[in-house]
Amino acid sequence: MDKKEILKTSKEYEASLKAMKPNIIKDKFLENPYDDEDIQKGMNVVSLSYDYAQDPKHKDLMTIESPLTGKIINRFNNIPTTKEELSARLKMIYTLSTEVTCAQRCVGGDGLWALFIGTDQLDKSNKSKTNYHQRLINYLRYIQDNDIAPATAVTDAKGDRSLPPSEQEEKNSYVHVEKETKDGIYVSGIKTPITMSLYTEEIIVLPGLQYSESDKNCAVAFAIPSDAEGIERYALGPDVTSLCGEFCPAHGTKYLNKEGMVIFNNVFIPKERIFLNGEHRFAAIFANLFATLHRFSYLACKPAIYDIMTGTAMLISEFNGTKGEYFLSNTSEKIFEIYKQSIIVSAMAKSAIEAAQVTESGAILPDPVYSNMGKYVASEYFPTAISILQDMSGNLPTNLPYPELLRSEKYGPHVSPLFARKKGISSEDHYKLNEWIRVFTASNEAGLLQYGSKHGGGNVEAEKVAIYGNSLRRMSQCKKMVKKFILDK
Amino acid sequence: MDKKEILKTSKEYEASLKAMKPNIIKDKFLENPYDDEDIQKGMNVVSLSYDYAQDPKHKDLMTIESPLTGKIINRFNNIPTTKEELSARLKMIYTLSTEVTCAQRCVGGDGLWALFIGTDQLDKSNKSKTNYHQRLINYLRYIQDNDIAPATAVTDAKGDRSLPPSEQEEKNSYVHVEKETKDGIYVSGIKTPITMSLYTEEIIVLPGLQYSESDKNCAVAFAIPSDAEGIERYALGPDVTSLCGEFCPAHGTKYLNKEGMVIFNNVFIPKERIFLNGEHRFAAIFANLFATLHRFSYLACKPAIYDIMTGTAMLISEFNGTKGEYFLSNTSEKIFEIYKQSIIVSAMAKSAIEAAQVTESGAILPDPVYSNMGKYVASEYFPTAISILQDMSGNLPTNLPYPELLRSEKYGPHVSPLFARKKGISSEDHYKLNEWIRVFTASNEAGLLQYGSKHGGGNVEAEKVAIYGNSLRRMSQCKKMVKKFILDK
Amino acid sequence: MDKKEILKTSKEYEASLKAMKPNIIKDKFLENPYDDEDIQKGMNVVSLSYDYAQDPKHKDLMTIESPLTGKIINRFNNIPTTKEELSARLKMIYTLSTEVTCAQRCVGGDGLWALFIGTDQLDKSNKSKTNYHQRLINYLRYIQDNDIAPATAVTDAKGDRSLPPSEQEEKNSYVHVEKETKDGIYVSGIKTPITMSLYTEEIIVLPGLQYSESDKNCAVAFAIPSDAEGIERYALGPDVTSLCGEFCPAHGTKYLNKEGMVIFNNVFIPKERIFLNGEHRFAAIFANLFATLHRFSYLACKPAIYDIMTGTAMLISEFNGTKGEYFLSNTSEKIFEIYKQSIIVSAMAKSAIEAAQVTESGAILPDPVYSNMGKYVASEYFPTAISILQDMSGNLPTNLPYPELLRSEKYGPHVSPLFARKKGISSEDHYKLNEWIRVFTASNEAGLLQYGSKHGGGNVEAEKVAIYGNSLRRMSQCKKMVKKFILDK
Amino acid sequence: MDKKEILKTSKEYEASLKAMKPNIIKDKFLENPYDDEDIQKGMNVVSLSYDYAQDPKHKDLMTIESPLTGKIINRFNNIPTTKEELSARLKMIYTLSTEVTCAQRCVGGDGLWALFIGTDQLDKSNKSKTNYHQRLINYLRYIQDNDIAPATAVTDAKGDRSLPPSEQEEKNSYVHVEKETKDGIYVSGIKTPITMSLYTEEIIVLPGLQYSESDKNCAVAFAIPSDAEGIERYALGPDVTSLCGEFCPAHGTKYLNKEGMVIFNNVFIPKERIFLNGEHRFAAIFANLFATLHRFSYLACKPAIYDIMTGTAMLISEFNGTKGEYFLSNTSEKIFEIYKQSIIVSAMAKSAIEAAQVTESGAILPDPVYSNMGKYVASEYFPTAISILQDMSGNLPTNLPYPELLRSEKYGPHVSPLFARKKGISSEDHYKLNEWIRVFTASNEAGLLQYGSKHGGGNVEAEKVAIYGNSLRRMSQCKKMVKKFILDK
Repeated sequence: MDKKEILKTSKEYEASLKAMKPNIIKDKFLENPYDDEDIQKGMNVVSLSYDYAQDPKHKDLMTIESPLTGKIINRFNNIPTTKEELSARLKMIYTLSTEVTCAQRCVGGDGLWALFIGTDQLDKSNKSKTNYHQRLINYLRYIQDNDIAPATAVTDAKGDRSLPPSEQEEKNSYVHVEKETKDGIYVSGIKTPITMSLYTEEIIVLPGLQYSESDKNCAVAFAIPSDAEGIERYALGPDVTSLCGEFCPAHGTKYLNKEGMVIFNNVFIPKERIFLNGEHRFAAIFANLFATLHRFSYLACKPAIYDIMTGTAMLISEFNGTKGEYFLSNTSEKIFEIYKQSIIVSAMAKSAIEAAQVTESGAILPDPVYSNMGKYVASEYFPTAISILQDMSGNLPTNLPYPELLRSEKYGPHVSPLFARKKGISSEDHYKLNEWIRVFTASNEAGLLQYGSKHGGGNVEAEKVAIYGNSLRRMSQCKKMVKKFILDK
Repeated sequence: MDKKEILKTSKEYEASLKAMKPNIIKDKFLENPYDDEDIQKGMNVVSLSYDYAQDPKHKDLMTIESPLTGKIINRFNNIPTTKEELSARLKMIYTLSTEVTCAQRCVGGDGLWALFIGTDQLDKSNKSKTNYHQRLINYLRYIQDNDIAPATAVTDAKGDRSLPPSEQEEKNSYVHVEKETKDGIYVSGIKTPITMSLYTEEIIVLPGLQYSESDKNCAVAFAIPSDAEGIERYALGPDVTSLCGEFCPAHGTKYLNKEGMVIFNNVFIPKERIFLNGEHRFAAIFANLFATLHRFSYLACKPAIYDIMTGTAMLISEFNGTKGEYFLSNTSEKIFEIYKQSIIVSAMAKSAIEAAQVTESGAILPDPVYSNMGKYVASEYFPTAISILQDMSGNLPTNLPYPELLRSEKYGPHVSPLFARKKGISSEDHYKLNEWIRVFTASNEAGLLQYGSKHGGGNVEAEKVAIYGNSLRRMSQCKKMVKKFILDK
Repeated sequence: MDKKEILKTSKEYEASLKAMKPNIIKDKFLENPYDDEDIQKGMNVVSLSYDYAQDPKHKDLMTIESPLTGKIINRFNNIPTTKEELSARLKMIYTLSTEVTCAQRCVGGDGLWALFIGTDQLDKSNKSKTNYHQRLINYLRYIQDNDIAPATAVTDAKGDRSLPPSEQEEKNSYVHVEKETKDGIYVSGIKTPITMSLYTEEIIVLPGLQYSESDKNCAVAFAIPSDAEGIERYALGPDVTSLCGEFCPAHGTKYLNKEGMVIFNNVFIPKERIFLNGEHRFAAIFANLFATLHRFSYLACKPAIYDIMTGTAMLISEFNGTKGEYFLSNTSEKIFEIYKQSIIVSAMAKSAIEAAQVTESGAILPDPVYSNMGKYVASEYFPTAISILQDMSGNLPTNLPYPELLRSEKYGPHVSPLFARKKGISSEDHYKLNEWIRVFTASNEAGLLQYGSKHGGGNVEAEKVAIYGNSLRRMSQCKKMVKKFILDK
Repeated sequence: MDKKEILKTSKEYEASLKAMKPNIIKDKFLENPYDDEDIQKGMNVVSLSYDYAQDPKHKDLMTIESPLTGKIINRFNNIPTTKEELSARLKMIYTLSTEVTCAQRCVGGDGLWALFIGTDQLDKSNKSKTNYHQRLINYLRYIQDNDIAPATAVTDAKGDRSLPPSEQEEKNSYVHVEKETKDGIYVSGIKTPITMSLYTEEIIVLPGLQYSESDKNCAVAFAIPSDAEGIERYALGPDVTSLCGEFCPAHGTKYLNKEGMVIFNNVFIPKERIFLNGEHRFAAIFANLFATLHRFSYLACKPAIYDIMTGTAMLISEFNGTKGEYFLSNTSEKIFEIYKQSIIVSAMAKSAIEAAQVTESGAILPDPVYSNMGKYVASEYFPTAISILQDMSGNLPTNLPYPELLRSEKYGPHVSPLFARKKGISSEDHYKLNEWIRVFTASNEAGLLQYGSKHGGGNVEAEKVAIYGNSLRRMSQCKKMVKKFILDK
């Protein structure tokens, strides 16, 4: 059978973006947003996921036959149904992450996946009076058939943390339904920070929290083109201009995670793109499904980052000629501490897969306790790992002379002796490694990475709540066990 | 087909022990060692593994059909060949450990398993000039056919840590071959501390380290009845007499891990029970196989202990009426910290199984990196978990009045108000829980548990070496990845 | 001028105890409580403070001329008025603590000191309508003139932690005034655990918490002979019988902190011994004064304990022959971690003295922030230090053969090779050091020490509250500084 | 008596710099180095130390009468002789650091101070055959009489860490004497990174390590104008251009620590400015004196930084409206963890002063153990404190919209709702605080701060060696105490 592939080239993806109506504001309105260096770097990350899908070396990993359409599609747009697919998905994310640190494209896939499970539950609990699941399947088919990489917007601006949406003075602190007509709804509000939102054609919106009856106008999920009437997108965060030098690491010069804020100003959402609308008890279910799936995705990129750190630690130890790279030296203790974390997070990933359950919708759901705990420990340890790298590398990374001097006829010979360390390694290679370490551990970009590791995918408190919520049976067994053990002699 | 079961009762096991020639010394020579309270408690632990094998509730878990004999045997004496058997083995150890903390009987099974794989490798590397593997199979059949629970002795006394065996002034610091005849070998030396050695019929001896050519008389492995001519066994550690009170936890009054020192005084080992004899390059292989398998076993008992601690933390929080047992309170943070560790170690177990490899011998080998790392993190965190329990329980556990008073007509009513805390819980139950916490966190027995968690199964340095040794390929990929990333622009 | 000394001998102290009406209950009523081995060991600790005061080597440190009576008295019974006296007091406690771990006698002195400052404040706030301060001075004179070592009882049984005293079903959960007559008050209730209460002639009682108007019958402070009508004392905690062997450390065979529970059954307190009675706003002031002073005392015994641990770590490293005792080895890192804590706590002590303030009463008050923080960090680090010692010492401490064997003609030669480590150190010395480590880190007594380090002098939460309460000005300056820094450009 | 003041204005200081021969290279040779924005910000820091000395509010703290000249000079150029002067010095550094984070000017004063003590010891050990101390006094007088702020250069490029200077292929890895004439010496080599070197008139050079006989040409100390023939200075580190926005914190827009590399190309040092020349045993003494004095200086700037962090944590908690700023909430726990460190480091400072010793030179020396340990713990804890701030502040700091939008008529109203949090705080103030947190915890500048906290003043290993070296007596007493305690029963 001749299976048709639906795989866009990265050129086609970029062309689609450029064809959209501009609505991105940085310091000012950008007429040609994809000429902006930072936004371009973000787009490059997503482009790689298109390129790899066509690259014979990665194609098997990056693509899959869609059970929905029978066509070969990008794996990010597929809804996993088996443990093998879960494994392949994580391997795909790991592979991309070792190139780009954050593959970003998971957010869209995870949003579709969460809606696939959630709408099925919702319809069934409604005894099929609603047909959200069918709408979602239609939308999924549209995404697959056009090989679109959507973003998913979950976090609201949230306003005063001590008040629910209905009591906020500023109504736009939460995305909410303003008005409903027979054709659809009108929504307003702020979602921020939204990964990939600046370089996507479609934005999926999910509720960010649980909502009570009185906040039910915030219990809304939908999808919409990112240039729809009334949408504004704002580029967030500092410029990362320091990463452009000749000796900069490849990553910094090509790739970046440029976050965006999406503001909805009375945006019309047609009926067929609405997946939740006022069923407030399902807001938390949708939010938690996405959180679990997205934290599961982290179990691939985090080991990638810890592996990058392990390799970096090994390399700086080799370049500096500090002894005992592998065995029980002071140095090997430090490398071990970083590597350990890669192993632990990998084990959480394997276990989340091993204990995964197929849901009624047919989609598989990784184990929530292992998924959340894996993300939790990966975040918890990150500052220590960064600190170890800062420690091992000495003070050179933040005290490099300017790169232009290295190849200067006049100053090069004066500056080079600074890099006289282990023989056989050029001054330029010493420079590059130290510059890489600076970028990774002590720069604006390092700051993004550190904040991302803490607050991306929800903060640690949210993960604890999810773990407790999914552990009631196991924890109550622990208590029973001890009770019997002690009291029932 | 009518399968024959070979499953001794615990009575039969105990009778076998009592029928042996006494050779146990405590403060003095014990004519009837199994009348000694502490040794009896140790024996009770092993008895439980016999009882459960006959208990319909646990039988499926505790037994398996031996591929060697076709008979139903205790699972501890089976050599695992599949991932399912690895899972069942850990579940068995977990189940026993929730009763007895340390199931102890794993050591014997792990010794047989290590020898099964190791002797096969050795014979093959010798192009079958040796037949150690066949000898081991014969011995395994003997163990299975008689449902024996052997001990495995690995750790030598070791003497001056800075010198190899051949340079030790005290030759008995290492078990070594004194003399060889055509019928067998004569061995001397000290193995200590040896779990289960005081209440077993058979002792399996493995080398404890790598040995060079000049120490090859220490590269010896064999099995021998524990009352063989020339063997002395010494009971080690303090008496644990404080655990006998009326309100003591069940565990303390019934079960104990009573370690022994085994001294070999020119003991004759017949040829057919020798599994290594001078092939010094295989000493480290045998030692490492045992270490990996035994650390894998820890991945079942450690979650059991962390689950016991989780349950204890939940219970003391409930009894003391401190608020917020489950959600984001100070108390729930503490419970979470303990529970987290149970999840992490369980994930390492799942991953060690998932990545296990079948060896040429037919036996399966759990993944060494996950096995060692799991034991490593379980040990590393233990003091923190104990400290959290000590913190949560207040100062009552070490400041209880004497238990006799609780039921005293005169003093009971005076003492009871001390236990007036949450309503509906009797003074006696308060007493029991606090006494349990004292025993578990602040007693001679707690000391055994803490030292065991650090030094049992080899110390953390040994685990790091094993992890590094098995990670060379993965770590070198990490380095290559970063090198390419940074240097090959 | 011929100054008269008032310094009892330890024999006289012990005789006073024995002359009192017995009211101590252990597992049963003790007719001769000071024949009880554990209670005797507690008494020995206090005896040492009498012996040292007469020992020329320590006399200058242990005694001082009382400004009240002009006589030479034990320093514990003096109210410090200068920084030099604070230094000498800590040096005294440090010196005793290096012998007995916990000097215990500080509690009485700290109680007098807290009342000295507190009653003065109370009378002044009452515009001298009360004369509590004069009563306290009279009592202080009585204590000094008879060289009595009083105990101070602060912590109540506390009942249900979520309810105030007035709402407790069990009224005895808090010591409270039952009735008042013109001659005095009648009190009932439980104080526990009370250090030194089993071997003292006098008990000082202070409120344990803040109390509101409705709980003002608990706002009571007084002093009373420990054998007064209606008082019962209960010995608490496990027997520590494992510490009596021939090779036991000196400490364990002589000294112990045996805590007691004191039950007041409608005990009459004569007017002149009442120092607070219903002035509920002063309950917290009295409790906090005592807490600060007592935590200040910890800044002497905690460095003593960390110094003992440092020395132990150095010794086991020397005995085991592990390399690199002093410089950058794995071992020296561990020793450093323990020693560091001794330095930090010593620095907190020096700073608490340097920032001390003389109160209106004439007594000096060590700085509350440094005092509380010093105790806090000393407690926080203790489990780590214990864990390091357990790690460094290997598994021998909990796996020693029975001590009787060492000198046995028959078994001694068999057992000795176990101790063949570094040359020139006898088996007995190896045994003693390892037994010491077991007692200190892995025994019933170690449990007492660990719980004491956490809950003695109030738990860590109480210390945080005290630190915050005394830091309002400093912390608000921090905030102002940043505000100006950021906002007022 | 009319005391003459010698206090330059900051204008005069800046004029002196600009009058010097340019020799600073950044990406290219800078004809007018003080027009460079980053170098200018560095100069501003030093200027503040001149301004404050003339500011009536700070004059008493910033100045002192020189015992050498009888004139009022900047306190940084005075050699302390009393504990009061030590306290005042730290208070001065603390005050400046709360404005500029790193006061920088300590390095020069600490260099003079170290040489004052070291040369005196050297001359005395030489039985006054050398007159280095008199030379140093002459130089000190020159510095004081001209109110110069010198830099001190200690750290060499160091080359291959496993080889001593004499075996380095690259000789310039260490500053060394090339040639000696009757008038002076010629030196070559690299010192890097050198604080303040880019904006100073004078550079003091000290040996960075201990040197053996064969490396004695590196055992050299001297002072030289920073524009002397043969000196090149290189600006190090990344541009910090992201700190110039309208809502940037005051600090970032004015102040910076811009490090420099100083290359000596056969520079002539006249005899009277040489303070060590080949007396290799004194190289380590000079290096250690400087290290101790400079780490002592850190005991003022580190509490300043921890206080800034405490204030920041309090402010973000207030702005975000998260509950429980001061008492036992999740938030207060985090603030406490930061504030604790300020208290601990302050205590180390107080103790270093209290235990200081006057040297034979007349200069006072702060206690080396407390000085080194204070720096050690301040560094050790820094990553945790940063991580806490990153945690508390949520994800806004790295996800701010561009500042230009805030005051834009068109976009301001759209962007402002993002900052709707606690009432009464303007969007601009929210922006400023979050931008401050980004700069402080997640930017290029944050990277400099983090690396400085680790490697400034020598790394942690160097501090441990210094602590061990100065603790031999105390640690050996610990060992003796335990020995007696255990073995001498």
